[in-house]
Amino acid sequence: MGFKKKLREAVDRNASLLCVGLDPEPSQMPPGITISEFNRAIIDATRDLVCAYKPNLAFYEAEGIDGLRALEETLRHMPADIPVIGDAKRGDIGNTARKYAQALFDSFGFDAATVNPYLGYDSVEPFISYPKKGVFLLCRTSNPSAKDFQDLKCEGTPLYELVARKALDWNVHGNIGLVVGATFPQELERIRRLCPAMPLLIPGVGSQGGDLPTVTRCGVDETGGNAIINVSRAVLYASKGTDFAEAARAAAETVRNTMNAHRHPQRP
Amino acid sequence: MGFKKKLREAVDRNASLLCVGLDPEPSQMPPGITISEFNRAIIDATRDLVCAYKPNLAFYEAEGIDGLRALEETLRHMPADIPVIGDAKRGDIGNTARKYAQALFDSFGFDAATVNPYLGYDSVEPFISYPKKGVFLLCRTSNPSAKDFQDLKCEGTPLYELVARKALDWNVHGNIGLVVGATFPQELERIRRLCPAMPLLIPGVGSQGGDLPTVTRCGVDETGGNAIINVSRAVLYASKGTDFAEAARAAAETVRNTMNAHRHPQRP
Repeated sequence: MGFKKKLREAVDRNASLLCVGLDPEPSQMPPGITISEFNRAIIDATRDLVCAYKPNLAFYEAEGIDGLRALEETLRHMPADIPVIGDAKRGDIGNTARKYAQALFDSFGFDAATVNPYLGYDSVEPFISYPKKGVFLLCRTSNPSAKDFQDLKCEGTPLYELVARKALDWNVHGNIGLVVGATFPQELERIRRLCPAMPLLIPGVGSQGGDLPTVTRCGVDETGGNAIINVSRAVLYASKGTDFAEAARAAAETVRNTMNAHRHPQRP
Repeated sequence: MGFKKKLREAVDRNASLLCVGLDPEPSQMPPGITISEFNRAIIDATRDLVCAYKPNLAFYEAEGIDGLRALEETLRHMPADIPVIGDAKRGDIGNTARKYAQALFDSFGFDAATVNPYLGYDSVEPFISYPKKGVFLLCRTSNPSAKDFQDLKCEGTPLYELVARKALDWNVHGNIGLVVGATFPQELERIRRLCPAMPLLIPGVGSQGGDLPTVTRCGVDETGGNAIINVSRAVLYASKGTDFAEAARAAAETVRNTMNAHRHPQRP
């Protein structure tokens, strides 16, 4: 099943816009548990509350080959009906980008991936040429330094907005989405207006400080969906004790319900 | 030993600006050979002719965990006095970028890495805070679509030049370099003038079409060094037969000698 359909069905089935970011930090986990056991427990505790999972590859790569094995084991444990986004932020020239697409889509088998747009169209094309996979281009990221380049006015228009416009041009297979940080709600609103039908992947609520009601209101499309709001640490490490999975479930439920209370269809 | 010193010594010892890109494509390799055996043969055949090696991680990740094991084996076989650049083009927000820096510098043990600047300072800082490691920011890449964003005029200045200017600002540890494609010699010349003392990593000669004499003339600094000119396919696959290592050596020697013939100190 293609990413878009899988996402829509998970959003409806679980009445949820919540994506749980699977970013394991061994120092935050209960002692003695492996990354793969930790992820399994989180998935089992939240699978009826989420619309997607999003492992960030950095957390696995930092643990070397054992970390990548844990990622593979985690992917094998994923429910078949929940889309999984590989947050890898790759970007390279054509023939090399093709290798990264192969790694993320064929080898790991992610349903979608994040891609850095700085190298332009030929670095993005190898990803979007998998028509059933979702491709989220970094547009306006959630970190404070995002402004260094993304806010620069290029012939009057901020760079992040030019990325969004290019994403519209390049979207011949209808599988492009955008990453827009929750920490900049005005920019989020602007991008949603510019790209009314694109899925937006929105990190930055919780620990990074994005305001959940505002972000939900600004992020959804005219159906009240198509926004994938990511929370990592506030769910994963809701408790650092052996009750971490129950605590994660409780945190996920609260976040999902708050989103749903503010999930009004956007009027254009 | 820090990256800069190791590079300078390898440049002098081997009288070379040639960096061999270790980008293994199984379809181009003699049948029956493993990636790790192939790389070892290439390294043994060229180690007295190069100033650096540069594995691009995409080629290893595309082969799954076996590919990453081959990368680890390759790194274990590296001569201790040749710097190795991890071409990973990573870029993520602060705490995640720290994990990528850990993966590349602590876990793999690369002497330097390439980093995508689109997320701004806090995505670069975790890399440059390893003062002995080199950090090459993507500035003007070698691919045709580089122009999509990198050439945009931001308040009158092309984006790639603003990246170079930021690199100068951020260079408090003196360990930042820039990636500038060989396919755009005018931009290369402009960046060398703007950043007279920065190491430039220059991919795009050979298969991608950059002209070696021009690139060497435009890329070197006032000592005739500090340019790391990368060649991958034209060396690795000089022959697809069992004589690939000898053919790689011959190709590397020719390229190195051509560079040296045009390696005149730049007059400012």
